[in-house]
Amino acid sequence: MPRFKLTIEYDGRPFVGMQAQKNGPSVQAALEAAIKAYCQADVRIGVAGRTDTGVHARAMAVHADIPRNDTPETVMAAVNAKLRPQPIAVLEAQAVADDFHARFGCVGRSYGYHIINRRAPITYNQGLAWHVPQALDLAAMQTAADHLVGQHDFTTFRHVHCQAKSPIKTLNRLSVEHSGEAIWVYADARSFLHSQVRSMVGCLVLVGRGHWSPDDMKAALEAKDRAALGYNAPPDGLYFLKAHYPEN
Amino acid sequence: MPRFKLTIEYDGRPFVGMQAQKNGPSVQAALEAAIKAYCQADVRIGVAGRTDTGVHARAMAVHADIPRNDTPETVMAAVNAKLRPQPIAVLEAQAVADDFHARFGCVGRSYGYHIINRRAPITYNQGLAWHVPQALDLAAMQTAADHLVGQHDFTTFRHVHCQAKSPIKTLNRLSVEHSGEAIWVYADARSFLHSQVRSMVGCLVLVGRGHWSPDDMKAALEAKDRAALGYNAPPDGLYFLKAHYPEN
Repeated sequence: MPRFKLTIEYDGRPFVGMQAQKNGPSVQAALEAAIKAYCQADVRIGVAGRTDTGVHARAMAVHADIPRNDTPETVMAAVNAKLRPQPIAVLEAQAVADDFHARFGCVGRSYGYHIINRRAPITYNQGLAWHVPQALDLAAMQTAADHLVGQHDFTTFRHVHCQAKSPIKTLNRLSVEHSGEAIWVYADARSFLHSQVRSMVGCLVLVGRGHWSPDDMKAALEAKDRAALGYNAPPDGLYFLKAHYPEN
Repeated sequence: MPRFKLTIEYDGRPFVGMQAQKNGPSVQAALEAAIKAYCQADVRIGVAGRTDTGVHARAMAVHADIPRNDTPETVMAAVNAKLRPQPIAVLEAQAVADDFHARFGCVGRSYGYHIINRRAPITYNQGLAWHVPQALDLAAMQTAADHLVGQHDFTTFRHVHCQAKSPIKTLNRLSVEHSGEAIWVYADARSFLHSQVRSMVGCLVLVGRGHWSPDDMKAALEAKDRAALGYNAPPDGLYFLKAHYPEN
């Protein structure tokens, strides 16, 4: 049966997250329902990242076996037609090998976290960014971020419900960039613990506000204790940006 | 009574437009209610631009007489507190002369129109941009736009309910810019006719899709007839960007 890799964008606001759950609409359930409406088959998708309630995606990767001899263009258009008017879109469909797996084949994940740093409340970005009204010291935030880059035990930055076998992860990039009032924190790793990006960003903002020094971030990391976490950033600003595979 | 200039951002989606109307919530009514809640007075605001239903603003200018001896910072914070949770924010408050008038003193208005040009539907930008799935020839659009720059009778691009005395306006800039799938059309003039920007953008997209040549835009302008209008773009993509005054 032809396997396709689908690149997906979604607005996380109306969803309980990527994974199908009993307590509300999920992106996975919406995608599987759209595929079923298109090809009359129960298709289970695999996903590169299991985003939480309210978290967005610019280019999530999923795979699905589609029991039709359709071109990628047809698959993309048909699934998009069935997804409407939900805020989920297939940006691209590619035919892939039968053993391609969106989760297990993924060798890198990129997240972005969007902060709007200004005194005034935010308007059209409500739910799409974290509004931080206090002045932020971006240089201090970057110094603190540098303490987290590399291979570490990230227990402090791990959600209590995290199901990963090991708390040891290798963070390849954690950079704080800005343009006017818009700040983006970029995080790259092979994989992340549950809530890791939001936990790191929450503590970076503590540093930016002067409540923590960059050394406090190092101490929190070395504590290897969830109780040492300073703050967990809200889901609003978090975007799954890209899933990396050896072939692309 | 101290007069203040307020710079306002808003998400136009929940509003019937800037002006107070009987058929739904307006930005003006929301602002006047917030000012009343703050200073217990009926204050009538003046506005630089009367945006339509669903049109947004990044930096609209309004003026209001505030019967309190408060600093601009206090005025901004107090009005923002009373506006919550509506998607309207005061970005800045400035004390101005008693004869400052946001509408009659405004010597230039800048609009931006946001198009997302890609096959896939849009998600988190729904209501915040115009989704155009067909390929667009941006160079042809700019050539067509150049025909509209300057002083002309813009009757073709004027809403039937437009209340302006004259259809003659001077368009200082109409530029088509893009970055990836994001296209912005920027329009600058001292003032615009009702629906002028949306009408110009709708016809520019006809040119981009190849339905019109750039010369067809010139012919539409010269027809001076609303019936010659090709297409009126939806409000979703339109943003009032800035009001210009001699003093700043």
